[in-house]
Amino acid sequence: MTRLRLDIAYDGTDFHGWAAQTGLRTVQGELELWIARVLRLAEPPTLTVAGRTDAGVHARGQVAHLDLETDDGAGLAAHLAYRLRAALPEDVVVKAVRVAPEGFDARFSAIWRRYVYRLCWDVPDPTRRRHVVAVPGPLDVPAMNAAAARLLGLRDFTAFCKAREGATAIRTLLEFAVADTGEITVKADAFCHSMVRSLVGALLRVGTAERDADWLVSLLSATERCGEIHVMPPHGLTLEEVAYPPDPELASRAQTARQTRCCGGEA
Amino acid sequence: MTRLRLDIAYDGTDFHGWAAQTGLRTVQGELELWIARVLRLAEPPTLTVAGRTDAGVHARGQVAHLDLETDDGAGLAAHLAYRLRAALPEDVVVKAVRVAPEGFDARFSAIWRRYVYRLCWDVPDPTRRRHVVAVPGPLDVPAMNAAAARLLGLRDFTAFCKAREGATAIRTLLEFAVADTGEITVKADAFCHSMVRSLVGALLRVGTAERDADWLVSLLSATERCGEIHVMPPHGLTLEEVAYPPDPELASRAQTARQTRCCGGEA
Repeated sequence: MTRLRLDIAYDGTDFHGWAAQTGLRTVQGELELWIARVLRLAEPPTLTVAGRTDAGVHARGQVAHLDLETDDGAGLAAHLAYRLRAALPEDVVVKAVRVAPEGFDARFSAIWRRYVYRLCWDVPDPTRRRHVVAVPGPLDVPAMNAAAARLLGLRDFTAFCKAREGATAIRTLLEFAVADTGEITVKADAFCHSMVRSLVGALLRVGTAERDADWLVSLLSATERCGEIHVMPPHGLTLEEVAYPPDPELASRAQTARQTRCCGGEA
Repeated sequence: MTRLRLDIAYDGTDFHGWAAQTGLRTVQGELELWIARVLRLAEPPTLTVAGRTDAGVHARGQVAHLDLETDDGAGLAAHLAYRLRAALPEDVVVKAVRVAPEGFDARFSAIWRRYVYRLCWDVPDPTRRRHVVAVPGPLDVPAMNAAAARLLGLRDFTAFCKAREGATAIRTLLEFAVADTGEITVKADAFCHSMVRSLVGALLRVGTAERDADWLVSLLSATERCGEIHVMPPHGLTLEEVAYPPDPELASRAQTARQTRCCGGEA
């Protein structure tokens, strides 16, 4: 078996998210279909992904892996990259295919995921309307940044997550910052479902001065999802980058992540 | 009569260009329809525009004017801006409506138009596929810039223009430069039809080393459109900005432009 790493970008507008679902157009479904076709596989392969993005969410730095039988991994990777470039529909691009280093797991080896949520609160740009969400403004960006910084670190994000049995919402938030351009960067070791969009929704209420930083911080002690938090629309969100440790640490990182169930890249 | 200035942005993807055409969806047609509706005019008004963009071309800095009967120009401008914000389809945005200064003409008073043509020659970004054109690369950006600089100034751009009876193709090219990001800026006092896309098409052949700077310069002596020049696809092109002189010079600038027939903002 040879494991291949795929670096992927897509426009989420016309996809029902990453995860394959019968009868729906999904990124995973489309990729598995075309990989099977161009490699003439009897069965579609199964892709394992770093971030299971929701319907409408975009990606520029998605990473996935798949395992294939081959004697020539490098040759197969080059062939697959070349054929997918021509075969895939224009809203999904496989940017690179490589033989994965020993111990690599697209999902469990990742050390962090970086998402950007794009807001605009002045005049909307119609050429960016599928990727930027217009909100009433102006927003108090310094207040938002001061509040956001107080959420950094190892925290329980239960208030911001869709409940999932047996899964914890304890994550390490590494970056949460708003630029004057309206780009909100959210970086964490991993995310639970709807976490980025909920974090942005909560932070927005600080930006409009409806709520303050203490309210935002108080949400960290919630024991269930907070109904007060608006989950922002998906089309403002893009998975920009997934990071992995140096090659010798890939396997141990994956083992740790599997054990702690800190498993998801859902956003 | 009160003249209003409208600042407009649109995504050209689903429009058959700026200019109204019976039975086709155009930016002018859409705007005139909605202005008539929200102001309850018996007849649609006529918009005069700075740059008559082709089908598929976008704009972030388009400017137009229209004349309306009113006793309260400022009030009408504010009302129109407010109503259009809610009424217009999401691919066209009227960013601002103001009472135009004395002597203002959106088309003839303009001193320059700035367009950006967006190329990418590495991995295409699917989220930008409606606004960026993928070309085989790499391109020799320094060679392109050296060649482009030699076209600057008052020139006859006949080789780059669709012929139009009685119109000259003499224009002043003020800026023509390629950034490493693939953005090509083209700024001139005015443009004739297909000029930006032809300039980019010609420059691209320098970037791929098929042709050199001398060939590009030699095109300036052509007496008819040059068949060797590829007109680039429209969706890479965006009208970014239109500039006007200080208010006291608006009327004289318009008069000069009308007389020299250096009239168009077509690109």
